[in-house]
Formats: sequence, C-alpha cells, structure tokens
Amino acid sequence: MTYCIGVLLDEGVVLASDSRTNAGIDRVSTFRKMFSFDKPGERFFTLVTAGNLSLTQGVVSLMTEWLNNENPDQDLYAVTSMFGAARVVGNALREIHKVDAGYLQQQEVDFTASFILAGQLKGGQLRLFMIYDAGNFIEAMGDTIYFQIGEVKYGKPILDRIIHHDTSLNDAAKCALISFDSTMRSNVSVGPPLDLMIYRRDSLKPGFTVRLEDDDPYLQAVREGWGGAIHKAFHDIVHDPGWDI
Amino acid sequence: MTYCIGVLLDEGVVLASDSRTNAGIDRVSTFRKMFSFDKPGERFFTLVTAGNLSLTQGVVSLMTEWLNNENPDQDLYAVTSMFGAARVVGNALREIHKVDAGYLQQQEVDFTASFILAGQLKGGQLRLFMIYDAGNFIEAMGDTIYFQIGEVKYGKPILDRIIHHDTSLNDAAKCALISFDSTMRSNVSVGPPLDLMIYRRDSLKPGFTVRLEDDDPYLQAVREGWGGAIHKAFHDIVHDPGWDI
Repeated sequence: MTYCIGVLLDEGVVLASDSRTNAGIDRVSTFRKMFSFDKPGERFFTLVTAGNLSLTQGVVSLMTEWLNNENPDQDLYAVTSMFGAARVVGNALREIHKVDAGYLQQQEVDFTASFILAGQLKGGQLRLFMIYDAGNFIEAMGDTIYFQIGEVKYGKPILDRIIHHDTSLNDAAKCALISFDSTMRSNVSVGPPLDLMIYRRDSLKPGFTVRLEDDDPYLQAVREGWGGAIHKAFHDIVHDPGWDI
Repeated sequence: MTYCIGVLLDEGVVLASDSRTNAGIDRVSTFRKMFSFDKPGERFFTLVTAGNLSLTQGVVSLMTEWLNNENPDQDLYAVTSMFGAARVVGNALREIHKVDAGYLQQQEVDFTASFILAGQLKGGQLRLFMIYDAGNFIEAMGDTIYFQIGEVKYGKPILDRIIHHDTSLNDAAKCALISFDSTMRSNVSVGPPLDLMIYRRDSLKPGFTVRLEDDDPYLQAVREGWGGAIHKAFHDIVHDPGWDI
C-alpha cells in the first residue's frame, strides 16, 4: 500500500508520500514515491505515485526519458500549461498500459496506478491534479483543495477539519504528518520514511524537501503532541446526556 | 453502506449503529440495524448488522423464528454459552446463504453480511463477537476490545487513541459518537439516526438504548465540541522544525 497527499493553498502547495511498498506481507521494501522535474525560474513540477510499483516506476522512467525531446505531449520541459503537464503523466501511463496491461491481466495482477501532480509554469497558476489509472485526471479547485491516493480513509478526517485555502504551509505540513500518523497506526503497509515537499507559490524554484525518518524529532513531536492533545480534547467535551445507564 | 461499533469494557459493553441503507445513490432509506433478544435476569443479547439488507433482515427474522424452539443450535434462549449464541448467528447466516446465495450470484450481487454480537448469560462472562460472511466468527479479547463492521476506516483512529479496557461506558459512548461523526462526514452512505446501546456488565437486564436523531442535543454537543477541540489540539502542538521554506 501507499499513502500520498497533495494540498493546494493560497501560500503554495504541500506534497507528502510514504515510502513503503509490499508484494505480499513478507516482501516489504522502501522506495521513494516523490519525483521532481524542475527548471528553476521557469517551471516546477512534483509528482507523487501510488499503485503497482513496476507501473509507477515505468511512468517516471518514461517521463524522464521524454524530457527534452521537445514533444509537448511527452516533454514536461516543452508543455505550455499545467493541463498539458497532467496530460504528459496520463500519456506516459497509457504508454505503459499499452505495453504491460495484457501481461498483467494474464497473471491476474490489477493495473492500478495513480498520481498527484503539482506544478507551476512561469506566468501561469500553481495547479494540482490527480491522475487516475486510465490516464484521465481531475484538478483541485473551489472547495476541494486536496487530493489523497493509496490508503486514503484513516487520514481523511483530520484533513477535512483543519485544511482551508488560507492554512499556512507550515500548518498544512503539520496536518499532513498527523494524517500520516493516523494512517500508519492503522495500516502497517504505509510506513516511514516520509518525503515532504513544500513549494511557495510563484517562487518557481525547487520546493523545499525533507525526508523524515521514524525517529525524526519533528515527526515525533507531532505524533506525541497529537496523542496527548486528542485525549485532552476528548475530555474537554463536557455535556451530560442525562442517560440512566 | 453501514457503520457499526461494539466495544467491550471492564464496566460493560457499548454498541452503536447507523440506520442508512442504499441500493444505489438514488435509493436511500432508513432501517434499524440493532436488535436485542433479552430474558431479564437470565440472558442479554444485542446484535448489530452490516451488509446486504435482505440478508441481514433474513438472519434476524430467522433468529426470531427460532426463539423458543429449544434447539441449542438455533434458539438464543436455549444456548448455554456465548460461544453457542455466536454459532446461532452463524447458523442463521449459513441457512440464508443456502437459500439465497445461488440466486444472488446469478444477478452478480455479492453475498456480504457481517455482525457484531454482544451478550451475557447468567453465571457467564460478558462477551463480544464479530461474525463474518461465511458464518465463522472471532471474539474480542486481550488487546483487541472493539470491533467495527461496514465503513470502518474513517472512524478507527479515534477509537485506537481513546478506547482502553478501563474506559467508562459514558466515555466509550462519547468516543463512538465522535467515530460516527468522522465517518458520516466522509461517507454520505452512513447516516443518522444512530442507535446506541449501553449494557452494564452482570446487570442481566436489557441494555440502555437511545436513538439519536441528527439534531439530538448530545450528538450536536459532541460534534461541535470535537470540531473546536481538534482545532485547539492542532494549534497546541508547538514545535518549530526549523525548515527554510
């Protein structure tokens, strides 16, 4: 399994991914699921991936091979909009699908892969997309400013309660870590280290990135602080329902 | 969809269920999913149900028809242990399966049904079981003192953080309502009214039951109190990671 989040805010964008992969519970490994394609001053892209590792790695490899081929359907450095960039991810996924899907089907392996893409081109808006198995995609806008892929449910309630468009980048990162903590507590196939990327809107330079190991002091502070705070919050709700138990 | 919880505590047991059912998003109805079979002073049973409504209703109808037939494989009033009572639920489910599964298969409808059963017989322990589709079951014990069925993920983190064997019945009920609130916010196919049952260990009388409509003052107090408390808890975590964003 996997868990990734992308949050689009007034100040910028926050992406986070775990790094655990498993092929059965007895084959657990660590793989990076966050990839950046930047041209400082001109364009910024970061991608996080979920699904079958051979497929997602294939997509990232193909997108890397396509760089500088100057075909705007393939080359992230040649696209003229974020819509075009999301299409490149979809095109790479469809290319891999063409090659591999039949063989996977023969082995009864699902063709599952999904992506969150954040990016900005000079003169354009910062935008956030989620790309599905079929290569189609949707964009964050209006009331929906975050996307999750992978094991999305355990960590959703905290995002719904905290994240708003005017949440600060630091607070969104903290909220993402709490969301990951809730997920990792419930699903052992989501695990550290966590990769975090924070991009300030219009900066057009590579986002700030950090890899948080399980014993990272900030991750620990958030985890312990949250555990204690939740207990306090729970006991602060004082209302006698007047039930005769 | 459905969401039900059962929590086994030193003080007793708490069961909760929602009441929304849907056959497609354009056929949404309200059905009770909590059923009690009591003989005050002698035995107490409460069952909550998830899955295909025709199957779970069939199981409850059959269990009701079997009452007083004095067959300990079928009659909850004739069983001599909670293990036997869990078997009765499994037997009813297998009986329905025998009759209906083939027809459901023809229509490509999954045979899904699961149950949480709490109960106590005079002279015996209070016990909590979860019964699966196939009529087999597991029992809460040791570190695992709660079960969930239906849409289980959104509401799990709060249970993991708050519920311990020595949690009071009132606190467990409050925690269950928070867990339901998180679930109902994320999945519209889980909805009020909520049925809540609280049984005090060794009382051998019907549990305290209450139906909470969406505008119930206690449900509202918990919901609003929790929303505010979560924000406070989030901002109370003060730790500067020292990132140069």
